[in-house]
Amino acid sequence: MTFTIEFQPRGLRIDSAQPINGLDAARQAGINLSAVCGGEGICGKCVIQLLTSAEEITPSEIEQKYLSPEKLGQGYRLACQTTLISDVKIYIPAESIIEDQVLQIEGGDSSHTIHTAVRQSELKLKRAHLKDLTSDFSRIKAVLKDEDLTVGLEVLRGVPALLRENDWRVNLWTRGKDIFHASAIRNVHTVGLAVDVGSTKIACYLMDLTNGSTLTAKGTPNPQIAYGEDIMARLGYAMQGSTQAETLCHLTIAAINQTTAKMCERLNISHDDIADVCLVGNTAMHHFFLNLPTGSLAVSPFVPVTTDPIYPSARELGITAMSGAAVYTPPVIAGFIGSDHLAFLLAARFGEDQRVRLGIDIGTNTEIALQVGDRIVSVSTASGPAFEGAHIKYGMRAAPGAIEHVQISENGSSEIQVIGSQPPIGICGSGILDAVAQMRMRNILNHRGRMDKTAPGVRLAADGKPEILLSTSKKPITLSQNDIDQILLAKGAIRAGIDILLDHLKVDASDIEEIVIAGAFGSYMLPEHAMGIGMLPTVPLDRVKTIGNAAGTGARMMLVSTLSRARAEELADQIEYLELTVYPDFAMFYARGIQA
Amino acid sequence: MTFTIEFQPRGLRIDSAQPINGLDAARQAGINLSAVCGGEGICGKCVIQLLTSAEEITPSEIEQKYLSPEKLGQGYRLACQTTLISDVKIYIPAESIIEDQVLQIEGGDSSHTIHTAVRQSELKLKRAHLKDLTSDFSRIKAVLKDEDLTVGLEVLRGVPALLRENDWRVNLWTRGKDIFHASAIRNVHTVGLAVDVGSTKIACYLMDLTNGSTLTAKGTPNPQIAYGEDIMARLGYAMQGSTQAETLCHLTIAAINQTTAKMCERLNISHDDIADVCLVGNTAMHHFFLNLPTGSLAVSPFVPVTTDPIYPSARELGITAMSGAAVYTPPVIAGFIGSDHLAFLLAARFGEDQRVRLGIDIGTNTEIALQVGDRIVSVSTASGPAFEGAHIKYGMRAAPGAIEHVQISENGSSEIQVIGSQPPIGICGSGILDAVAQMRMRNILNHRGRMDKTAPGVRLAADGKPEILLSTSKKPITLSQNDIDQILLAKGAIRAGIDILLDHLKVDASDIEEIVIAGAFGSYMLPEHAMGIGMLPTVPLDRVKTIGNAAGTGARMMLVSTLSRARAEELADQIEYLELTVYPDFAMFYARGIQA
Repeated sequence: MTFTIEFQPRGLRIDSAQPINGLDAARQAGINLSAVCGGEGICGKCVIQLLTSAEEITPSEIEQKYLSPEKLGQGYRLACQTTLISDVKIYIPAESIIEDQVLQIEGGDSSHTIHTAVRQSELKLKRAHLKDLTSDFSRIKAVLKDEDLTVGLEVLRGVPALLRENDWRVNLWTRGKDIFHASAIRNVHTVGLAVDVGSTKIACYLMDLTNGSTLTAKGTPNPQIAYGEDIMARLGYAMQGSTQAETLCHLTIAAINQTTAKMCERLNISHDDIADVCLVGNTAMHHFFLNLPTGSLAVSPFVPVTTDPIYPSARELGITAMSGAAVYTPPVIAGFIGSDHLAFLLAARFGEDQRVRLGIDIGTNTEIALQVGDRIVSVSTASGPAFEGAHIKYGMRAAPGAIEHVQISENGSSEIQVIGSQPPIGICGSGILDAVAQMRMRNILNHRGRMDKTAPGVRLAADGKPEILLSTSKKPITLSQNDIDQILLAKGAIRAGIDILLDHLKVDASDIEEIVIAGAFGSYMLPEHAMGIGMLPTVPLDRVKTIGNAAGTGARMMLVSTLSRARAEELADQIEYLELTVYPDFAMFYARGIQA
Repeated sequence: MTFTIEFQPRGLRIDSAQPINGLDAARQAGINLSAVCGGEGICGKCVIQLLTSAEEITPSEIEQKYLSPEKLGQGYRLACQTTLISDVKIYIPAESIIEDQVLQIEGGDSSHTIHTAVRQSELKLKRAHLKDLTSDFSRIKAVLKDEDLTVGLEVLRGVPALLRENDWRVNLWTRGKDIFHASAIRNVHTVGLAVDVGSTKIACYLMDLTNGSTLTAKGTPNPQIAYGEDIMARLGYAMQGSTQAETLCHLTIAAINQTTAKMCERLNISHDDIADVCLVGNTAMHHFFLNLPTGSLAVSPFVPVTTDPIYPSARELGITAMSGAAVYTPPVIAGFIGSDHLAFLLAARFGEDQRVRLGIDIGTNTEIALQVGDRIVSVSTASGPAFEGAHIKYGMRAAPGAIEHVQISENGSSEIQVIGSQPPIGICGSGILDAVAQMRMRNILNHRGRMDKTAPGVRLAADGKPEILLSTSKKPITLSQNDIDQILLAKGAIRAGIDILLDHLKVDASDIEEIVIAGAFGSYMLPEHAMGIGMLPTVPLDRVKTIGNAAGTGARMMLVSTLSRARAEELADQIEYLELTVYPDFAMFYARGIQA
């Protein structure tokens, strides 16, 4: 029995014949809910409000952790935890649509921008007889009215039996002029897979290629982590030999396949329905995925094997998809600027106007692009994993139990906000940023980044060095001078990158018309605090935008639209890479950048 | 030590640093000696005359069989049996250059027509450093001055190590815009392989792609024969299942690989030096080779899976060649008119003038093309293997011991000529043709093909039926009424095809300006006898040309020239296929054709 789900305030409706997950339902309606964790129930961002039927849908344990009893009573739920089974009206709070800005830029109604690389057609051919002796393939070309079509041997080998066993009817998939797949006529899902391979996490999206909507999404940790926390460590491992390099390749591909299998199961489709794939990642992830040699990425001058777009066969790479499907991997820019950066700039519409715009994707490597007029210059800076909680004593990723926000009062006491409203077990990047910014504001930290041992709230640790106590509720959580040093090094690297870009393109920080910040940390952090510690230059707050996993958004745009691919390739040609380490006075910029 | 071989009367010279086979030396000089057997020493056609050094080169046993002591004393040898080791001057008798007409048509100096599909370049790149950070592949494109070049993953995976281990020098092979192979700089042979897959025999040629000369050639029996003497039997076998069909595919490929391996050994090169391949064959051989389903070729209306040119990877097909090399398989025309027929018409320059020309390739299936003005119409006729000696009591292929020519005197006694000047052990196609033509001339045979039991030379066999005795020298060799019936059926099928073509294009036999006959049998047979028994319409003898294995010549032309490929593809579009069995009054034409 089919039921209807209505989404407000947009007024979008979808029908479903079977129980459907709330996140998937929103995606099918074309609404991209914020779901940093990929629907795992650990970020609590995909809040929706059930305007009807709320009493029928009991909140899960996870929802009770993230939402107050009052909110639950008002029908608030987490979309990813909710299974919709009958007619329902749902309200989407504005803050739940973190990627909406980007998608609105994409053209509002996304159906206008669907130009998929693959096309599916149902054909009915005339049967061969003695007075019409053209070959099977000539018959196909005649019906498709295109004499220039080509077809691979693999497909050609299957066509004669398909035609003769199915009354001369056949389903064909073409990419450009090439017929790459043939099957018997059946109810065909035309589905695509977009992948963003991060060093830490792999985000996968199944998209409906007929309307460009996201059917489902899922994240998984990048299993390469077992071979090195950061990229340099993994590149070092790969240099030990081709077996090691292939291990990193196979691990990534296996993780993508497993995640895709789970998504297919969720949608009750086969991986054979995946007719196209688009994959982005930093240059090391891109090379590992394609099993390209990474030796030259591991040592100076860090050059990629190629920066061109590559379009290999999915099955030859080991990706489970429709036979004949290809994987589009967009251009990379340089050794440390990958196609994820390109996808981010594509999603943020860089290169489409002449404004002074700064784009920042904060991670272990932070890529920064500055657009001034016709020019876009990008740098990569080794900011380290401090903002992801690494090398910080109580640091952790943004997950339940992490302190995500901190207020320090004049008397040095801290007020904290914890993900999942539970006793804190650590502190994540946005919390660390808050703490350092407030310590600087309260003069607990001087401009050289030294803690004032005498300031209120500061105590001496066992090693005699000062630390500030943030919480004692479950266990003492502190921030030490060493932690602060790590943060200042990280923010210093980012700020040096920004300042060098401004210097290089001869614009002043005050000229910046927009700062676009991508990435999970970028979505949680308070921009005013990022300015407070000098990570970002000070600009009016309304010029700062956060856009979540923009690389994933860009990958999805390229999956469903050859126009987006063409645009990305133009953008890749336009982007100039600037090597920071040979920039004049690099050391001076860096020294100035790390000042608190 | 290098020595010089000079060929007269053409005055061509080649140098060799090592002992070289006479046939190969001629080929390297661009002279295509007649060698129907492919250099196996069993056809005795590649006669040369050593003008110097003859006394140093002792004739082999085989040469003593084919050449009289007088001839041997005059320096006559078989090129395929002769190893040249020092300076020598060689005279090539005109009758040894059977394919010369075609090669002259090719443009005399073949270097004018070399436009190979693959190109090899030696590159020296600039090394990457911190102020020049472009990728390896970008460096390659810059040196080749072509931004549109593409490269496959397989090649790309090898390039970084090749560059860094060889001082940034590399050898690259391109095909169109695609770089398909890379290797370290070394003395590179750029070699191509042309193959003509016949139902009975596979002819392989290794060609120098830098100058278009044939380096060596070799024939091998088609091992599919074990699964059926004729095409229909093999198609029937393949219909038993995919394992059976694959067996036929793998046998052909293994035979090509083995033959190629022997040729490579002869030239001291590796199969990895084979950068391009061109393969022709009848449509069944073409489909078997590509492992395309042949079910539709086995039953009416006999349509191919595709008639388009196909260009798959050699290694994916199982052909041992350079990694990245492709196999060009030219278009086929219809279920029983393959790319061998196209290659024949290409070599014979059909479609390049407006004359009335008839092209005939006699075999188990005989393909016939008639050109009239702008039109070329082709038919295929099941002439059967009688002219190859099959279904004839003493029939055999053209090989030592076969009666190749017969004269019957008025008193019915026969004078015979035997291949290899030895006692006859059987009779081959040209001998059978002679005998039947002379019997008809002497009225031993009436116009309905019945033998006159009372004619001189005719005797009654054990079954009471008449037969004619041709030889008794080793064993009695006879031709029976049944043998004659087989021949008349075969020639009748051919004549019916010719007459229907003339009728269809509304020209008279007397309008025919040229008859071009291809194939081994076509080269041996006497055209006047073919006209005598009515296999060919009667035209002045100087209008008849024989051109040997024209399919092999066409395959070689297409291997070394993309212009020839383009010409062949145009020709394929121009050729109209005519299905004989549905032609009005087909039965009448056939009945008239078999009359003696």
